[in-house]
Amino acid sequence: MSISQRLRQDADPIWQGIIEHPFVVELYEGTLPMEKFKSYILQDYNYLVSLIEVLSIIASRATSLDAMREVVEILRLELDSELKGYEEFLKRLGCSRQEAMAIDPLPMNLSYTSFLLSTSSLKPYAESITSILPCFWSYAEIAAHHQGKLRGNGNRLLVEWAEVYLSEAYLDLVERVKRLVDEAGEGFPYERLLETFSMASRYEYTYWEAMYNMETWPL
Amino acid sequence: MSISQRLRQDADPIWQGIIEHPFVVELYEGTLPMEKFKSYILQDYNYLVSLIEVLSIIASRATSLDAMREVVEILRLELDSELKGYEEFLKRLGCSRQEAMAIDPLPMNLSYTSFLLSTSSLKPYAESITSILPCFWSYAEIAAHHQGKLRGNGNRLLVEWAEVYLSEAYLDLVERVKRLVDEAGEGFPYERLLETFSMASRYEYTYWEAMYNMETWPL
Amino acid sequence: MSISQRLRQDADPIWQGIIEHPFVVELYEGTLPMEKFKSYILQDYNYLVSLIEVLSIIASRATSLDAMREVVEILRLELDSELKGYEEFLKRLGCSRQEAMAIDPLPMNLSYTSFLLSTSSLKPYAESITSILPCFWSYAEIAAHHQGKLRGNGNRLLVEWAEVYLSEAYLDLVERVKRLVDEAGEGFPYERLLETFSMASRYEYTYWEAMYNMETWPL
Amino acid sequence: MSISQRLRQDADPIWQGIIEHPFVVELYEGTLPMEKFKSYILQDYNYLVSLIEVLSIIASRATSLDAMREVVEILRLELDSELKGYEEFLKRLGCSRQEAMAIDPLPMNLSYTSFLLSTSSLKPYAESITSILPCFWSYAEIAAHHQGKLRGNGNRLLVEWAEVYLSEAYLDLVERVKRLVDEAGEGFPYERLLETFSMASRYEYTYWEAMYNMETWPL
Repeated sequence: MSISQRLRQDADPIWQGIIEHPFVVELYEGTLPMEKFKSYILQDYNYLVSLIEVLSIIASRATSLDAMREVVEILRLELDSELKGYEEFLKRLGCSRQEAMAIDPLPMNLSYTSFLLSTSSLKPYAESITSILPCFWSYAEIAAHHQGKLRGNGNRLLVEWAEVYLSEAYLDLVERVKRLVDEAGEGFPYERLLETFSMASRYEYTYWEAMYNMETWPL
Repeated sequence: MSISQRLRQDADPIWQGIIEHPFVVELYEGTLPMEKFKSYILQDYNYLVSLIEVLSIIASRATSLDAMREVVEILRLELDSELKGYEEFLKRLGCSRQEAMAIDPLPMNLSYTSFLLSTSSLKPYAESITSILPCFWSYAEIAAHHQGKLRGNGNRLLVEWAEVYLSEAYLDLVERVKRLVDEAGEGFPYERLLETFSMASRYEYTYWEAMYNMETWPL
Repeated sequence: MSISQRLRQDADPIWQGIIEHPFVVELYEGTLPMEKFKSYILQDYNYLVSLIEVLSIIASRATSLDAMREVVEILRLELDSELKGYEEFLKRLGCSRQEAMAIDPLPMNLSYTSFLLSTSSLKPYAESITSILPCFWSYAEIAAHHQGKLRGNGNRLLVEWAEVYLSEAYLDLVERVKRLVDEAGEGFPYERLLETFSMASRYEYTYWEAMYNMETWPL
Repeated sequence: MSISQRLRQDADPIWQGIIEHPFVVELYEGTLPMEKFKSYILQDYNYLVSLIEVLSIIASRATSLDAMREVVEILRLELDSELKGYEEFLKRLGCSRQEAMAIDPLPMNLSYTSFLLSTSSLKPYAESITSILPCFWSYAEIAAHHQGKLRGNGNRLLVEWAEVYLSEAYLDLVERVKRLVDEAGEGFPYERLLETFSMASRYEYTYWEAMYNMETWPL
């Protein structure tokens, strides 16, 4: 079994929680209140901007030129596709990019991106590349699991958002990140990779939870 | 008004929440369940280890030799006094340092330290030094506000813990951090300092909240 | 005058030394011994790999999303054009990429890349982006100044190497870096930019000097 | 044999060059022109300030709390003894600290500190702590080798400078750095440690060379 598959398997209880999260289920069914979707897109746009920063840092820490090239390619694809896609969604939701970037990150958003930024800044490359795998991979697994619901989903915006993660381009992106983890994890203590993977997966779960409950700072 | 005083004033609503937090009140009154205190000390020991790391990073980013010397001095005082004090408490609570360090950080602990680590790694020195001010300062203000309660507090361990933050040595430490913020903030956009100070203050509050509710990862 | 033009003007004495350096003149005239050219290509390939790392770090420190996108685009262009071009030259010179990467950097090569890596890791974005401007820009100015000599240059390899820096694609790259410096330098102390620009320009000069004299470590 | 001893042995040809360097010999004999000594102290003061920065970065990357404490202790000792000693020498040479810090680092000084700063910022802790060993250790070995010459040295300033590196306090400092390298090197690819150790040793040599020849930037 590859390292990425083993990580996925060992974190399965957390991943079941992610995949069956009500935010995700309602989004695919089309019953998610648009107010929640809009708030999510605004938060997630900020998250993606931080993810781009994380990818730049990881690129600079890659332990081989080939790995660096590959991280840069992933970075470019994120900029050109997912981030541009979100800017399109923002427009359709009536928000400018400037408005979106001026929004304060919610607690779990700031916490998750801080975790990714501090990991990529301070930990070895193998842990850093592992820290971003749950984010890429879980969206693909969510999409594969719930795609059947999209037929009954009459909300055009939600369907278009979801379809991105079913596209061949996105699945290819996920495979690339997995491959980088498999290569970097070779000879690296598995326990530390699992700790990083589990933490990032927990942040994925708590992120959905926070979006569903629209959790703001208490003060 | 100095920059640090202005920050403190502008974040007053958050600070009122911190100072009057039930965890803090019960700790000073002596009614805090020891199970909660023990769990807090274990978490906070891990927090302090990360704070030491944060201080090292900040020292390396200081914009003058005098500021660097001062951050190193604060770092050394933290290592020699607060961290050693916690190691003493751990012993009295029946935990070894090894056990303490093996403990998984709770969500808000990991989130708060990730915020401090990513800020110190990636932001200008002025923002980094500001990010650690609420942690140092709020403990002194809590102690000053609640010290009257200590006379009625029969729990020796809680009283000894609290008295550290009333000591002249600790108050001097706080003054040093304030002075560094005042110096670094000169000519730096105040809004960005306030954003950092407010975020760190919010993390202080949510940290107490998490300790009080003994919030673990949901999965 | 734009900031980049002012920097160029204030560092003119160093730039004259770069432009008229015998390594450069002989390369354009076609009289450079191939042994020196081969040694240069091997060293410069290692330099370019470090430059890619520097660009990743700078991307992660960019102070706006637009600047970050632009640095990533420059990074991608470097990977896709200049670095690939060098890999082509390596092949024609009878070296594999593996051989090239196994070569020890000469003193001035390691020193120059260490300067760029430490600047991008530890200094503000404005200084970091300025540190890479001499490298990009001086190659274009060298090419513009000496292009007339290429007609009399019978060495195909040298001519092809030189023509890259006359191409519209390369000139566009230089303009992009200049624009980033002009934007980042706005409101930033000019003296610090000039110090960085001068140091990087001096390293450019000493790099040519070291290549010309094939300076190795004394021990 | 310990890792540090093995490194020292494998880099012996470079170390012989360091120990027998004319700058060092003349300094211990008392025949070094004071103009060279003054220029060296000014450069080396700037070097030490960067070394403090390097030590802060290394502290933040230490892989255990004990190692971090130890690096901080080394950092504090450097600040309190060697750096303060240099400030004393500066005074006796008629320079203020401000003048000293305003001086431009010579090429090999900037190159060496850039190498240490980029290594500590970007490489694993084991390589970073190894990178500073030659600097600490070679001064002790130079002192042990040449101490006999001090009796015939009538230059009070030179003798006092040299005696620091014969003191028990300094030798203890060197042992601490060696121990950190031995611990961090356990299980780490030796070849990479040797590469770092050799490069830093070469920089030590070229640094003495540059000081002896008072090498300035060519332009």
